Amino acid sequence: MMQCAFYLTPDGKLLDQLSKEQIGGFLATGEGLLWVDMEDLTSEDADLLSNTFCFHPLAVADCISKNIHPPKIDDFEDYLFLIVHGINYHIESEIVETTELACFLGKNYVVTSHDVPMRSVSSILDRIRKDERLMRRGADFLAHDIIDALVDNFMPAIEEMDEKNDQLEAEALHEPKRETLMSIMQLKRSILALTRVMLPQREIVNGLSRGEYALINERARIYYRNIYDHLVRVEMLTLGLRDMAESVLSTYLSSVSNHMNEVMKMLTLIATIFIPLTFVAGIYGMNFANMPELEWRYGYFVILIVMAVIGISLAAYFRRRRWL
Amino acid sequence: MMQCAFYLTPDGKLLDQLSKEQIGGFLATGEGLLWVDMEDLTSEDADLLSNTFCFHPLAVADCISKNIHPPKIDDFEDYLFLIVHGINYHIESEIVETTELACFLGKNYVVTSHDVPMRSVSSILDRIRKDERLMRRGADFLAHDIIDALVDNFMPAIEEMDEKNDQLEAEALHEPKRETLMSIMQLKRSILALTRVMLPQREIVNGLSRGEYALINERARIYYRNIYDHLVRVEMLTLGLRDMAESVLSTYLSSVSNHMNEVMKMLTLIATIFIPLTFVAGIYGMNFANMPELEWRYGYFVILIVMAVIGISLAAYFRRRRWL
Amino acid sequence: MMQCAFYLTPDGKLLDQLSKEQIGGFLATGEGLLWVDMEDLTSEDADLLSNTFCFHPLAVADCISKNIHPPKIDDFEDYLFLIVHGINYHIESEIVETTELACFLGKNYVVTSHDVPMRSVSSILDRIRKDERLMRRGADFLAHDIIDALVDNFMPAIEEMDEKNDQLEAEALHEPKRETLMSIMQLKRSILALTRVMLPQREIVNGLSRGEYALINERARIYYRNIYDHLVRVEMLTLGLRDMAESVLSTYLSSVSNHMNEVMKMLTLIATIFIPLTFVAGIYGMNFANMPELEWRYGYFVILIVMAVIGISLAAYFRRRRWL
Amino acid sequence: MMQCAFYLTPDGKLLDQLSKEQIGGFLATGEGLLWVDMEDLTSEDADLLSNTFCFHPLAVADCISKNIHPPKIDDFEDYLFLIVHGINYHIESEIVETTELACFLGKNYVVTSHDVPMRSVSSILDRIRKDERLMRRGADFLAHDIIDALVDNFMPAIEEMDEKNDQLEAEALHEPKRETLMSIMQLKRSILALTRVMLPQREIVNGLSRGEYALINERARIYYRNIYDHLVRVEMLTLGLRDMAESVLSTYLSSVSNHMNEVMKMLTLIATIFIPLTFVAGIYGMNFANMPELEWRYGYFVILIVMAVIGISLAAYFRRRRWL
Amino acid sequence: MMQCAFYLTPDGKLLDQLSKEQIGGFLATGEGLLWVDMEDLTSEDADLLSNTFCFHPLAVADCISKNIHPPKIDDFEDYLFLIVHGINYHIESEIVETTELACFLGKNYVVTSHDVPMRSVSSILDRIRKDERLMRRGADFLAHDIIDALVDNFMPAIEEMDEKNDQLEAEALHEPKRETLMSIMQLKRSILALTRVMLPQREIVNGLSRGEYALINERARIYYRNIYDHLVRVEMLTLGLRDMAESVLSTYLSSVSNHMNEVMKMLTLIATIFIPLTFVAGIYGMNFANMPELEWRYGYFVILIVMAVIGISLAAYFRRRRWL
Repeated sequence: MMQCAFYLTPDGKLLDQLSKEQIGGFLATGEGLLWVDMEDLTSEDADLLSNTFCFHPLAVADCISKNIHPPKIDDFEDYLFLIVHGINYHIESEIVETTELACFLGKNYVVTSHDVPMRSVSSILDRIRKDERLMRRGADFLAHDIIDALVDNFMPAIEEMDEKNDQLEAEALHEPKRETLMSIMQLKRSILALTRVMLPQREIVNGLSRGEYALINERARIYYRNIYDHLVRVEMLTLGLRDMAESVLSTYLSSVSNHMNEVMKMLTLIATIFIPLTFVAGIYGMNFANMPELEWRYGYFVILIVMAVIGISLAAYFRRRRWL
Repeated sequence: MMQCAFYLTPDGKLLDQLSKEQIGGFLATGEGLLWVDMEDLTSEDADLLSNTFCFHPLAVADCISKNIHPPKIDDFEDYLFLIVHGINYHIESEIVETTELACFLGKNYVVTSHDVPMRSVSSILDRIRKDERLMRRGADFLAHDIIDALVDNFMPAIEEMDEKNDQLEAEALHEPKRETLMSIMQLKRSILALTRVMLPQREIVNGLSRGEYALINERARIYYRNIYDHLVRVEMLTLGLRDMAESVLSTYLSSVSNHMNEVMKMLTLIATIFIPLTFVAGIYGMNFANMPELEWRYGYFVILIVMAVIGISLAAYFRRRRWL
Repeated sequence: MMQCAFYLTPDGKLLDQLSKEQIGGFLATGEGLLWVDMEDLTSEDADLLSNTFCFHPLAVADCISKNIHPPKIDDFEDYLFLIVHGINYHIESEIVETTELACFLGKNYVVTSHDVPMRSVSSILDRIRKDERLMRRGADFLAHDIIDALVDNFMPAIEEMDEKNDQLEAEALHEPKRETLMSIMQLKRSILALTRVMLPQREIVNGLSRGEYALINERARIYYRNIYDHLVRVEMLTLGLRDMAESVLSTYLSSVSNHMNEVMKMLTLIATIFIPLTFVAGIYGMNFANMPELEWRYGYFVILIVMAVIGISLAAYFRRRRWL
Repeated sequence: MMQCAFYLTPDGKLLDQLSKEQIGGFLATGEGLLWVDMEDLTSEDADLLSNTFCFHPLAVADCISKNIHPPKIDDFEDYLFLIVHGINYHIESEIVETTELACFLGKNYVVTSHDVPMRSVSSILDRIRKDERLMRRGADFLAHDIIDALVDNFMPAIEEMDEKNDQLEAEALHEPKRETLMSIMQLKRSILALTRVMLPQREIVNGLSRGEYALINERARIYYRNIYDHLVRVEMLTLGLRDMAESVLSTYLSSVSNHMNEVMKMLTLIATIFIPLTFVAGIYGMNFANMPELEWRYGYFVILIVMAVIGISLAAYFRRRRWL
Repeated sequence: MMQCAFYLTPDGKLLDQLSKEQIGGFLATGEGLLWVDMEDLTSEDADLLSNTFCFHPLAVADCISKNIHPPKIDDFEDYLFLIVHGINYHIESEIVETTELACFLGKNYVVTSHDVPMRSVSSILDRIRKDERLMRRGADFLAHDIIDALVDNFMPAIEEMDEKNDQLEAEALHEPKRETLMSIMQLKRSILALTRVMLPQREIVNGLSRGEYALINERARIYYRNIYDHLVRVEMLTLGLRDMAESVLSTYLSSVSNHMNEVMKMLTLIATIFIPLTFVAGIYGMNFANMPELEWRYGYFVILIVMAVIGISLAAYFRRRRWL
């Protein structure tokens, strides 16, 4: 479904909601700047891409397919075809989802396509509606603005994951439960998936900033380089997060084993103190005819005191050896 | 055994089931397009490869040998010799098998050879029998179609492994058994083997798409690049699977140790509560002549109450410390 | 806030505390050497950067933003824009913080900007105030001096971390507590973060020393190469620290498990010695009418001796098997 | 000790057992093909290498020294000096030994030297004695045949290691003993050592097949490329073996811990069932004057039944919780 | 302190113990060969380096500083400045120390400087005193001889570490103590430190052998290449050592846990056999008025037999399940 179709005429007037025919017309002039954004492609949209814009069938197929596509850039001379990924972190389920943005960048047009609504795209749309000057700097700058907004959305997700990490660390330390482990694993997996999408993404933006593509104006390159720097920062933060998650996992495991050790020490305390005492009681429970102590007047009390001494000595010994 | 031998004449007629002599004749013309597919090579087939097609003896030896060959590409100027791998995942035994396809790609012919039946090859065969236009675009496109079908078969196998992974995670969580561990290990190994075959495969297709080989027409390259993109996607999914399997293994280990901890806690509960009580009973089982409590009228009942108090206090203490 | 603004006139006089207008004037001459240092940028400072120095808006934005920026170097032809990191190790909290220094290096000026006070910058400031000859060798040498001071501050931090490591090892060995583990983890994370900032930093300095930038005079390059060597040394020490921390972690874990093993052995000693003895006592506590031993004159004493023999034999057996 | 010295005269006659003088003479002609193989070098052999062949003293020193030399290739313009490794797997001791073959390859001669007898060399010797045509294709092909035979010997060793691995896995699963662990470790180390020797070896053969050395004829290169493919296959199988060994190690560790868990569960079963029962018996063993139950006619039998009920209930509870 | 100052005059006479002035004089001629070796630099030596040899102040500073410098090579056109590392393994403390040798290599001089006495340098000194021909081949060969002697000293250290490893393995297997673990860790760390110093060292020698520096004569390069091969061998052995140490660590951990398991099994044996028996004895120790078995004539003996049967059956059961 076409979300928007802007056209900035060469004399700086912004036209909105163009029809398919108008798009074809403006394209043919090679002047002004056209931006078409599509969400959840219909067959009509695909037809626009294939026949009006005459994009390569494989690129159009990538837009239509609901599969995950790793970030990539294809140079079709007249236009570049980019797939870049945004990020969506669902804090309650600890799942990081990446959302794809397919982008055709031509001399005087930008065509974007995505399966789900994207905050970064709609924010740029809104800003253009308010102030068409954003489109005056040309197609390469417009594409830059869109990708920049996409990359900026990484930061809040990473901050949320960082918070989640802290929360899991506290949980691991004080109340390690099965669910804590599951959450840590999930988070670790999310971070790994994120790391994996970052690398190709960074390389694409690096290529754009290094002047490998003629469609990117020299003046625009330093701005792409700026996105590249953001991605390097995101990558560094992600690696820090990964260390953090690794450390939370260690904390969890050590917490659980610590807990178990305390339980075992309690068993040891009770058992090692009372087993000898029970043995002593067992001795004087024997029925031998001739057991002199049994006849002593204070035999019972003496034995009680002996038992108390044994018990206290053992407990003291354990304490001294710091076992309890 | 020759499975099929198609010849598309320059005027677009499709001939099937060619004899060895016909193949030689068509080859000599350098026109039209010939596809010969062989399964489980006989010595007669080898003779065809060596003498009619005049392929290099080392390439023919690779076709005949039943050994595993890593994916590779050899450029013999007049033709390319490729080995690419497909995938066969047996869900019940958790084993990933790769199946080899050897492919000779010449100017006007494609010769494929494999040891076992391959779904991808036979699907292309069937499609050509119905519609010979598939062969009109030339040898490079035909080879592309075959490899593309091969790569498309990766996705269902990966999905099945993903499902198996989920199933093993549930099993590891709720009923960790010896067999679960064996299955996780097997799956991990399969994923690693798959990862290892992906890398050279990707590089081969990358070479084909970058124009390193003159036999691949420029128009065809973007289609090979599309296969490359698929392989990158498969690789990313495989890496995700590997993380997943790693995480299932952790779940299993933590499940087993969790189970053991519960058992140990039960031992501790019973032992630490009853050992002191047994000691108390032991005391009053002693046979001292002078034990005043024994003569008290309600001594027995008092002691029973004392024991109950001790037992309940200990249980309460344990519960408060969250040990049980 | 501008911290200082030095100007060394071509005839070797040092002017301090320049006004914004003076800075503009001196800049225009292209002679002498100007150093402006800013801490915690105000909007007025940003204005100076943008309008007087005419730096690129993206570079100025990097200076203003409080975000972490990985080390980088941007070549704007007329000037270089560098971000390098210093280090701040808080021994009590075991946290390594890196502090950023943004530096513009032009033909006859150096502009530095940082968010927090930096010891390395202020030490150079002080030295210049005492002896203006430090500025005579040109902008590239001045930038070198600042970066060199920054890098020299790494060594004390690494030494402190090394000491902390030793202290944690002793703690892990003799008194492994929960907090010890937390500290080890924190230290490991700090070292990893440090490793990660070192690599890009080293590469930047390597680029400066290899003559990739025309603004660095050939004579100055060997001095940058010297900083590079320092960074290689710091990296090697950091990797040694990482091994060390890994080994302290192993020591901690083995210490905890060792401690637990001792506790369990004590349980085993007590239980395996007294359980059989208690059984023997239990036998002679049975009330059978016909138990000949009970009537023997020295039956009780014989049994006591038998018990002692059993107990001592078991203890001796354990000792011989080195279980205790 | 010289093992053999073949000379194929330009008119195709094979001379065997040449004297040192003959070797010198044939060498000088620059025609025909000479192969000298030496085992366990004597000083006389060294003299032949240094003075008749005039090889570089460092290369001769490498031949004489009994040290391990990593695979390498040195280009002395007139001849190549290669060190390649074969493999010897002693299944009973699980040790993989690599055996070195030093090889000088000149325009019309091949000189091989090794410390211990090598199956690959002697098999080629025997084949030449039967059929001198093997030497007709020139020195580069002869060297290829020797290296090929060497590489072919890798496969049986890898298959034996694979079998050993399977056997260890069965052992780890059913009878994990100390020796099993030692064997797994030994095997892992052997595989790692093998992996490490493979990489440089592969790179050397890669160099030979890529035409980096003028002495290797273009026609021979594809045959070296074939050896390269074999080495890639061996490497892939070795990596598979490593995963396998890793997995056997996990199986062993899990087997041992599983075994221990069963033992602990038995302890728990017995202790948690009998400790409460013993307590009950202890109560009625107390000697209080007033214990009404003791006087009941069927008190004893009632208590026996109560005990049986408690015991069975506990056992049922454990079974229901799947603890036993 | 200057250790020696040799000068080989152009007509082959060896002068020893030169004064500072003589050194300056010989240097100026540009003929003959001068070797100056300094240990533990005094300020006078530094003056010689700075003023007589006119070395770059940064290189001289590296010689003076007692810090660790990673291996490096600096090309100052007229001379090369190298830092290479030797090795010192203290077997009793398991510490590997690397010792630095700074070396200036000019057209007709070699200047070496080190902080501690180095066996490799003094052995070359002694050999020259006996036979001055060692200096006839020029400065590059002399530097080669010194570095070669340095590298040859790696082998005995590695052999000692190998022995230490074997000794630790035996200890880990038969008598795992706290100290064994500490030693293993220390050894592992030493090996890692060694690995880390090897890589840059190898690369430096590789550069020298590849003809990157004009001061190294073509004839000398193959000799540097020989050192490179030695370093590759040392690296391979070091990696083997690392695997070995890893495996010793596993042995230790498994030994400790094995030991603990034996202890736990003994506990289980004793407890599970005697706890039920004690319960039986407890039953007949109850004081019920009506307990028919107590009155039986052979009741006591029957019960003793029953107990023996129970005990033996349990022991047999455990043995059959291979628990003991």
